[in-house]
Amino acid sequence: MPGLYEFTVPVLIHKLHCLDHLLAKAADSGVDEATLMAARIAPDMLPLPRQVQIACDTAKLVVMRLGQMEPSPMPDEETTLAELRTRIARTVAYLETADPAAFAGRETAAITLQFPGMEMTFTGQSLVTDFSLPNFYFHMTIAYALLRMHGVAIGKMDFLDGKSRPA
Amino acid sequence: MPGLYEFTVPVLIHKLHCLDHLLAKAADSGVDEATLMAARIAPDMLPLPRQVQIACDTAKLVVMRLGQMEPSPMPDEETTLAELRTRIARTVAYLETADPAAFAGRETAAITLQFPGMEMTFTGQSLVTDFSLPNFYFHMTIAYALLRMHGVAIGKMDFLDGKSRPA
Repeated sequence: MPGLYEFTVPVLIHKLHCLDHLLAKAADSGVDEATLMAARIAPDMLPLPRQVQIACDTAKLVVMRLGQMEPSPMPDEETTLAELRTRIARTVAYLETADPAAFAGRETAAITLQFPGMEMTFTGQSLVTDFSLPNFYFHMTIAYALLRMHGVAIGKMDFLDGKSRPA
Repeated sequence: MPGLYEFTVPVLIHKLHCLDHLLAKAADSGVDEATLMAARIAPDMLPLPRQVQIACDTAKLVVMRLGQMEPSPMPDEETTLAELRTRIARTVAYLETADPAAFAGRETAAITLQFPGMEMTFTGQSLVTDFSLPNFYFHMTIAYALLRMHGVAIGKMDFLDGKSRPA
């Protein structure tokens, strides 16, 4: 039966490829890159680069915690779509080093996340289902929405599949 | 070890409650309801009601298919936030009738989805990881973004948890 590894590592690698595909289409779209890099859903929401960076970090950190891996810090310094695509590639490369065997029995591990002013405690299982996957998709979808708002020609299949198909 | 049931039914019920919570905050926000109901990310994207309806249907249909349940058609007729909240409640009630035992061994079942002009074939496992969860979160996040764009005071914890916590 599939376990935490199957619900995280291959899924996140696939969806990071989809996110990369969205940014590749954005880079080829002719839409002004500075406009895209500054795009926000609302003035007090984060701009496109932070959405991509947080999606990457959410994927990286859940796999690190479940797979008991060494951290791989990646500073948030990207200022172009090309640099964001490199960040995604680095994150995928990290995920590809995860050892499926290290995920065994991690469903019940206690994992506490620290946030400014609060902390949240999960099991390995609830970290995946209640925090990491929803948070990853949240930031990936906001990135998609920002590109769509500014006229990049992408559709649902680009989001789900990473390649265009007939609508 | 958790299986397909654990990665779908309780997760989707929780997140549907979060989506309901977002709409409850929208209804209490004082933001013009007609504006919210007509809100779109881009002119050729679907408005708020369709985002909520598709999130509901994505949750309903994956549980129906994995759990081999009777269909429960829900026509897309909602025109108010209150009606959308009722749609969510009906969807949750349907999910609550799912039998965990019916999910056993469904990881490898072949499941084909029909779309206009195309079809996609999944296993039970890939239906969850590659289509249903990403699609559910896509539409939930777009709904969130539409509310945020129009000034509803919601934050990430409302999305993840369904209740406000210190930011």
